[in-house]
Amino acid sequence: MALIVQKFGGTSVGNTDKIKAVAQRVLSCHKQGNQMVVVLSAMSGETDRLIGLARAVQQMPDLREMDMLVSTGEQVTVSLFAMAVKEAGSDAVSLLGDQVTIQTTNMHTKARIKSIDSGRIKRHLDDGKIVVIAGFQGVTEEGDITTLGRGGSDTTAVALAAALKADACEIFTDVEGVFTTDPNICARARKIDRISYDEMLELASLGAKVLDIRSVGLAKRYKVPVHVRSTFTENEGTWVVEEDKNMESMLVSGVTYNKNEARITISKVPDQPGVAAKIFLPISDAGIVVDMIIQNTRAGSMTDLTFTVIRSDYDRAMKLLEQVAAEINAESVSGAQDIAKVSIVGVGMRNHSGIASTMFQILAREGINIMMISTSEIKVSCIIEEKYTELAIRALHEAFALDKENVPAEEQV
Amino acid sequence: MALIVQKFGGTSVGNTDKIKAVAQRVLSCHKQGNQMVVVLSAMSGETDRLIGLARAVQQMPDLREMDMLVSTGEQVTVSLFAMAVKEAGSDAVSLLGDQVTIQTTNMHTKARIKSIDSGRIKRHLDDGKIVVIAGFQGVTEEGDITTLGRGGSDTTAVALAAALKADACEIFTDVEGVFTTDPNICARARKIDRISYDEMLELASLGAKVLDIRSVGLAKRYKVPVHVRSTFTENEGTWVVEEDKNMESMLVSGVTYNKNEARITISKVPDQPGVAAKIFLPISDAGIVVDMIIQNTRAGSMTDLTFTVIRSDYDRAMKLLEQVAAEINAESVSGAQDIAKVSIVGVGMRNHSGIASTMFQILAREGINIMMISTSEIKVSCIIEEKYTELAIRALHEAFALDKENVPAEEQV
Repeated sequence: MALIVQKFGGTSVGNTDKIKAVAQRVLSCHKQGNQMVVVLSAMSGETDRLIGLARAVQQMPDLREMDMLVSTGEQVTVSLFAMAVKEAGSDAVSLLGDQVTIQTTNMHTKARIKSIDSGRIKRHLDDGKIVVIAGFQGVTEEGDITTLGRGGSDTTAVALAAALKADACEIFTDVEGVFTTDPNICARARKIDRISYDEMLELASLGAKVLDIRSVGLAKRYKVPVHVRSTFTENEGTWVVEEDKNMESMLVSGVTYNKNEARITISKVPDQPGVAAKIFLPISDAGIVVDMIIQNTRAGSMTDLTFTVIRSDYDRAMKLLEQVAAEINAESVSGAQDIAKVSIVGVGMRNHSGIASTMFQILAREGINIMMISTSEIKVSCIIEEKYTELAIRALHEAFALDKENVPAEEQV
Repeated sequence: MALIVQKFGGTSVGNTDKIKAVAQRVLSCHKQGNQMVVVLSAMSGETDRLIGLARAVQQMPDLREMDMLVSTGEQVTVSLFAMAVKEAGSDAVSLLGDQVTIQTTNMHTKARIKSIDSGRIKRHLDDGKIVVIAGFQGVTEEGDITTLGRGGSDTTAVALAAALKADACEIFTDVEGVFTTDPNICARARKIDRISYDEMLELASLGAKVLDIRSVGLAKRYKVPVHVRSTFTENEGTWVVEEDKNMESMLVSGVTYNKNEARITISKVPDQPGVAAKIFLPISDAGIVVDMIIQNTRAGSMTDLTFTVIRSDYDRAMKLLEQVAAEINAESVSGAQDIAKVSIVGVGMRNHSGIASTMFQILAREGINIMMISTSEIKVSCIIEEKYTELAIRALHEAFALDKENVPAEEQV
C-alpha cells in the first residue's frame, strides 16, 4: 500500500463534470489499495473573477483581505470534490490550509510554508478516507489566511508529500510531461522519462512552465519523487527524481528558451569602486529583478555594463538608468527588447568539458550572433536576437541528438 | 461612544457598487464616534449558485461539505467590504466564524451557536478598526465549518451584540421596519416604532419574514435592543425591545397571516389511549412539522383529529396518514391545501379578556368561516379559507384601529 499525493490544476477541475471525472481517476487509484491525498486549485477563471471583484472595490487591494478573498476559490473546489467522491460511494473529507494546519509566514499573497501538521490527515487516511486539501493556502500563527503566490498549489502538494513521507507526488497538468524542448517549436521534441531535481530546477528557472520552481526546490530538499503527467491520458509522464548514473551519461537533457527578457547596456561607466552598487541599488529598490549581468572593461578606466530584466520592467528600468547614468557620468544607456535567452541543461555537463563551446559553434554555424553568455555547473545560456529563437532551438536539439533516448555523451555531439 | 452591530443582507451587498455604498453608510456612523461591528450575508444569488454546483455533483449533498462550500459566500463579501472601507481611507479587518471564534454545535447546515469569544473583536475595535464578520457561519470544536441555517446572519448579529454587550443591533433590510400588517394587502398598514420581544416572536413565528425567529429569541434572552430598518433610507425603523407600559396599553399590535400551511383531518378515530401517538409518531419520524392540532370528541367512543402541516409536506403527510388510518381503524382521511392562518398579536391581551371573541365577531361579520382556532397569552390564530385572507386582514386591521398610533385599549374596538 502506497501513500500518493495527487495535485490537479484549475483546468482539470474547471467545471462540475471535470470534477467528477477527476474524482473517478483518484478513486481508481484508491481502489488499487493506495492511500490518497488530493490537492486542488481553484476552478479555472475563478481566481481572476475574484481579483476582478477586489479591483472594483479597492484600487490596490489590501493583501490580507485579498488572501481572505481568493482562498475561497480552492475552498469551493475541495468541497465539491469531496461530494463527488461520496456520490461515487467512497468516503472523503476536505480540509483547508488552517484545518490541516499548513503554517506559513505572514507575507500575504506570497507566503512561505513554515510547517505542516500531518496528524489530522493521517487520522483521516487511516479511516480509509480520501483527503482533499485546498492548494495555494495556509495560515499564519495569528490565524490569518495566507496564499502562496503563483504555482502555490504545486508547492502545497510537494510540501504535503514531504510532511507525509508520501511515496510519490503526482502533478497532473495539460501536457504529457517534461519535454526535451518546446514541442510547438521542435516537432522532434521527446518526452523525458526521468530527470534530476537540479536539471528541473534549471529548466523551471529558464522558462519551462510545467512545474513551479519552488516546488522543485522543496522536492529536491526532501527527496520527494515528483511525477509530472497529463490529466487527459493514462500515460506515464516525467519523473523528477534524484540524479542517477544513467542521467549523468547524457550530456544535455533539454533545450529551453525565454522570450520574456529585455537587455540594457550602460556604456563608458567610470570604472571606480562602488559604481555597480550605484547602478543596481535603485533598480532593486524599484522591485525590478535583474537576471544576467556582464561587465566588459574597455581600454582606459572605462567599463560597459549589460544586464537583462523582465520585459514588462524594461521602460521603468530605462528611465531609472538614464538618471543614474547622468549621476555617475556614464556616456549613454541603450537597450533592446527583441532578445531571447536560449539554454541547454544537463547534469552530464559536470563531467564533460567543452559543452559551452560546442553550443557556440552550433549557433555560429546557423549565423546566430551571441550577445551575452551565462553558465552554471549544469547549464549554458546565451542571449540572442529574438527572431532566431526557433532556429537556435531546433539546431541545438538536433545537434545534441535529444530526439533519441539514452544517447551516451560521447555520441551526443 | 456607543458600540453598534450592523447587519446587512444579501440584497444590500449584491454587487461591488452596493458594497461600496454600504461601506459609506457604516463609515458615517463610525465617524460619529461609534465602534462598529458589521455582519454580512453572501451577495444575493451566490448561495443559490453554490448550492446549484453542489447538486450537480452529489444528489443529496453531504452536509459537512455543503457548509464548507456555502460559507465561501460570506467570506467573499466580508473581504470585499473590508477593502471598500480601506479604499475610503479608514481601517477595517474581516473575520470568519472560526477566527472570531463563533463556536457552534456540529449539526451541519443548521448549527446552533454555543459560545462567542469576543476578545479578538474587542482588540480590533480598540485599535479603531471597523470589524467585518461573516454572518451565517461558525465552527465546531473539531474545527469544521458550520452554517446556522435560514436567517443565520440575523442570529450571528444578535449573538455578537449580546457577547459584546453592544448598545444596539441594527438589522438592515429592504423594508422600513415592522408593520401592523402586510402593506401589500392593507394600504393603511402602519410602521410600528417600538414592539416587544414577545410580540415580535409571535409575529415571526406566524409568518412575518422581517426578522428570523431565532434571532428574536436570542435578543429577548440577552436583552439586546434590535433596530429593524431600511438599507435604502435614513428613516428610523422599528425597535424590538423590552415590554413597557405604553405597549401594554395597546390591545393588538399587529395582524399577520401565513398561506404556507395545509389542513389534514382524520375522522372517526377510535378514542383509546395511545392513539394520538400512533398518528403523530410516523409524522414526526418523517421530519414533518405539525403546527396546530385540534381534537373533537364525537358521540360514542370516536374522535376527529385535525392538524396543519407545511404545505410542501402535505402530500407526504397524506400518504402516511392513509396507512396509519387503516392500522388504527379510523374511518377516513381528508384534507385541504387552500387554507390560511390569520393571527392578531399584542401584549395588551394579557390584561384584557374577550379579544378572541371580538376577533371571531369581526370575521363572522364578513361571512368568513373559522375552521380551527389556536390561542396563546398574546395571540389568537384562526384557520380560514385562503381566498378570504386579504379580506380578513383588512377587516381586523380596521376594527382594531391599527392605522392609528397609541390608541388606548378601551378605544381599540
